[in-house]
Amino acid sequence: MTIFIDRLIGAIQEKNTPCIVGLDPALDRMPKSWLKHQGITPKSSIVERAEAIYQYNLMVLDAIADLVPAVKPQSAYYELFGSAGIIALEKTIMAARDRDLLVILDVKRGDIASTATAYAQSYLPSEPKRPYAADAITIVPYLGTDCLDPFFQEAIQWGKGIFVCVKTSNPGASIIQEQKINHRYLYEIVADLIKSAADQSIGESGYSGIGAVVGATYPEAAIKLRQQLPRSIFLVPGVGAQGGGNEGIKACFNPDGLGGVVSSSRAIMYPHLYGSEDTNRDTIRQAAIALIAQVQDILTT
Amino acid sequence: MTIFIDRLIGAIQEKNTPCIVGLDPALDRMPKSWLKHQGITPKSSIVERAEAIYQYNLMVLDAIADLVPAVKPQSAYYELFGSAGIIALEKTIMAARDRDLLVILDVKRGDIASTATAYAQSYLPSEPKRPYAADAITIVPYLGTDCLDPFFQEAIQWGKGIFVCVKTSNPGASIIQEQKINHRYLYEIVADLIKSAADQSIGESGYSGIGAVVGATYPEAAIKLRQQLPRSIFLVPGVGAQGGGNEGIKACFNPDGLGGVVSSSRAIMYPHLYGSEDTNRDTIRQAAIALIAQVQDILTT
Repeated sequence: MTIFIDRLIGAIQEKNTPCIVGLDPALDRMPKSWLKHQGITPKSSIVERAEAIYQYNLMVLDAIADLVPAVKPQSAYYELFGSAGIIALEKTIMAARDRDLLVILDVKRGDIASTATAYAQSYLPSEPKRPYAADAITIVPYLGTDCLDPFFQEAIQWGKGIFVCVKTSNPGASIIQEQKINHRYLYEIVADLIKSAADQSIGESGYSGIGAVVGATYPEAAIKLRQQLPRSIFLVPGVGAQGGGNEGIKACFNPDGLGGVVSSSRAIMYPHLYGSEDTNRDTIRQAAIALIAQVQDILTT
Repeated sequence: MTIFIDRLIGAIQEKNTPCIVGLDPALDRMPKSWLKHQGITPKSSIVERAEAIYQYNLMVLDAIADLVPAVKPQSAYYELFGSAGIIALEKTIMAARDRDLLVILDVKRGDIASTATAYAQSYLPSEPKRPYAADAITIVPYLGTDCLDPFFQEAIQWGKGIFVCVKTSNPGASIIQEQKINHRYLYEIVADLIKSAADQSIGESGYSGIGAVVGATYPEAAIKLRQQLPRSIFLVPGVGAQGGGNEGIKACFNPDGLGGVVSSSRAIMYPHLYGSEDTNRDTIRQAAIALIAQVQDILTT
């Protein structure tokens, strides 16, 4: 079986874009007309609401499946509906797979030892038939090496991917991630902890699925991290709603034009919130095409 | 409605112990005879396995409900079974509540802005009827202030609790948490970020539900953090299986004998793995009574 990173790089080359679409289905961002059409009212049950977020995702998936290599569901928006939401997440992952999209599940988990292994096995199981089996997940490194290592071990063993939150795009991250220790930032120390697992898991594509989340809002950090982890794949949020800069996006990529995936969620999922008259399959598709062109432009100039 | 921290302190005083029981139901730790009796075989479906972990929890809850103030389900062991596992978690939370136990859900979530709010609303909802409504959750601070603040805001608004992982008990944590910045450890800087929210949310008990996870394995850290956050409640794992020291446990408490909850999971849930001949309601109860006596001993000498 081809491992995650090689499938991802292959899909990026085939579809000619590193853009991926975040699936953050929030009922309060969806068009009122769409919710009405689905029969969602303030009295709708949690099961009905969870089914609505799945139906919304289907509209998004159908609009963008042939355009992008992967989708990134954000787990919080599904967990909000308890088990009904997790059913919606499982169905979303299956629907993405049916459309040949890779699934990077944004769960930002972080725990230690056997608990970390349980999380890894939850989302990156060895049996591909488990419905909620993602291809890669995000994790948070605050608990140190005995948090990171079990995740790396499971991912490498089963050919999956891990994106460690190294330097995130939010302004409040600096109070932790930019603390200076002997002239180096904490995020550089975190990157050190990834390097060995990344070096041991380079695929035929020349890249490793042991990667990092690197915000586009900090170009200097991206430049440093790209040098420090030259073969790791970077997940770059902060485009669109989070206002990532062009310079930062570019810095996450190598001269070969590869090395990153650029994620956008709200600007694709909810065009009516970003200047479009309506949100439907066509306007979602147009928003994705616009993002792809924008990122292409950034990476080639 | 009485807020979480006041209910917790009240329950600690009523039951005369700060010990809580972790609910980490792992099939491979359960007695083979018990699994056989439940009809669990290697061919059992994921739904059957998830139901078995719930049934195991019921045995544990019935054994310990009158002894301890709270339980701490570890989410990873439920997520392992996808939506079926979350149903088991929801039912476990309801069963704990029915037995007048507070529920500290160990999810170690961490994300930013609206996503952080979505996580907080998932597990600490304003509507008490949502089945997976916990009383408090654990979170991870690597994403900084715009991760912490939305959680604090929701928790304070709805009278819930938050335990920020400040200094965890695992050996690999030091590479992050003990980095020194201007003669202070990173975990002290994290504690700074909690202090203001903790000070603003002190209940009638004199304590705040904006608390910290502090491992018993590092007494010096516990002493510092107890001084830095005198009114915050500390969640102290590292007892039993994780081998926390007596000195570290003691340091997490104030001279009034309050300020911490001490969690033990495996040593209570699986007595047959810790020298007992069998695991059943009686031996689980005996293990809990032994832990309570041990912690009482530590705190009074």
